[in-house]
Amino acid sequence: MLNARSVLVTGSNRGIGLEIIRQLVESSNSPEWIFATCREPEGPRAQELRNLAAKHQGVKIIQLEVTDPSSIQAAAARVTEHLQGAGLNLLINNAGILRPGSLESETPENMSEVYQNNVTGAMMVSQAFLPLLRKASKEKNQKGMSCSKAAIVNMSSKGGSITNPLILDVGHFISYRCSKAALNMLTRCQSLGFAEDEILCVALHPGWVQTDMGYSVGQAPLTVDASVKKILNTLGHLSEMDNGTFVNWEGETIAW
Amino acid sequence: MLNARSVLVTGSNRGIGLEIIRQLVESSNSPEWIFATCREPEGPRAQELRNLAAKHQGVKIIQLEVTDPSSIQAAAARVTEHLQGAGLNLLINNAGILRPGSLESETPENMSEVYQNNVTGAMMVSQAFLPLLRKASKEKNQKGMSCSKAAIVNMSSKGGSITNPLILDVGHFISYRCSKAALNMLTRCQSLGFAEDEILCVALHPGWVQTDMGYSVGQAPLTVDASVKKILNTLGHLSEMDNGTFVNWEGETIAW
Repeated sequence: MLNARSVLVTGSNRGIGLEIIRQLVESSNSPEWIFATCREPEGPRAQELRNLAAKHQGVKIIQLEVTDPSSIQAAAARVTEHLQGAGLNLLINNAGILRPGSLESETPENMSEVYQNNVTGAMMVSQAFLPLLRKASKEKNQKGMSCSKAAIVNMSSKGGSITNPLILDVGHFISYRCSKAALNMLTRCQSLGFAEDEILCVALHPGWVQTDMGYSVGQAPLTVDASVKKILNTLGHLSEMDNGTFVNWEGETIAW
Repeated sequence: MLNARSVLVTGSNRGIGLEIIRQLVESSNSPEWIFATCREPEGPRAQELRNLAAKHQGVKIIQLEVTDPSSIQAAAARVTEHLQGAGLNLLINNAGILRPGSLESETPENMSEVYQNNVTGAMMVSQAFLPLLRKASKEKNQKGMSCSKAAIVNMSSKGGSITNPLILDVGHFISYRCSKAALNMLTRCQSLGFAEDEILCVALHPGWVQTDMGYSVGQAPLTVDASVKKILNTLGHLSEMDNGTFVNWEGETIAW
């Protein structure tokens, strides 16, 4: 069972991110600090998150735009302050965007925007919170790796599996697919580079979920609630055996 | 044996690109049209290519900056004019850049620049030359796929293999590794999307070659001459069995 003292989730005002926050506050061993970051904490699209934070003291809403280095730095400073010397156990790089675009119609603008959000964003956020993840790893007097100790979970997609590109018309979502394959590569590099710090790094496919993004590509079969229940269960089970792998919401390994 | 009537190679003023042009003009069945594209055909770094073109009429030097859509369009128009109604058999997306950058030091600027060159560039060039590739595929009264008929070869790197990231310190060249994994994904999508046109699409690892780029990461073991000899031999052997795969200079399959 996931037993993290502190968790940070990017893109947490909607969809899977919001549901992770909701289920974390409702769990029997809720983390002491739940940092819910999003681009516009005061905006109309963060109302549900604000309602949740109003009811649960552990939830701290932090402004974080993953494509803006200064916003990331400011967020890391605020989180460090909240933690009062403690580390961050679990970073979930969940923020991401999807743009339509076929092999023949995909544009350089889409390619850049999607990559900056889905890959460079996850990279920069990981860099900024690395000192807190290292601190968390050292705090825990426990060998091995786990999401309760210190971990980076990058929200990927089976649409980024080069071996088995997900159903759908393969010609579509080129910018998204390329970004997720690149994010998987980043995850793999992080898993190798941060192994000595005992920080677990995995790429996670949440399933084809009934979110705005999921519906934008067709009849998504999986409810947000069901996906996130399984995701949190899976995160609770991951160990050093899973470091540098690509798993789905149920914990099954996916081919790169 | 490679038997293409027309070939286009991007980034052909130096390194592997230049050597491909050189070996193509010297081969016993040299293509009728060899389009050697580079960013600055008049610049000092294209002197060797200009010398080669001065001696061999088949070599046409064409300005092409892979990050500039208007440059790509102009290049496609010039190539179409040269071909006088014929198609383009083989497009080699060879242009690419590498920037140093570790997990902790990699910058958003590097990430964007490398991605634009190595992935978006290959995508846009493929889009622009697709009508000529389709024409070449239809011209050839021959079932199946080959580089002599119609093909896109994307110059990738084993450094972009998520399964087995190449030797070297894994923390380095993050922007490059992520871009090559994404390029592999693009290749896979192209192979599926263009299969009905019988356009062969592969990702190619040229080996760790003694070019400026190769030396910039250490003692490269493979001469440019040896790498390109094997590459051209491999291209001559590829068939529909290889569509959508990742192969090295010797034709061996590499894991994604």
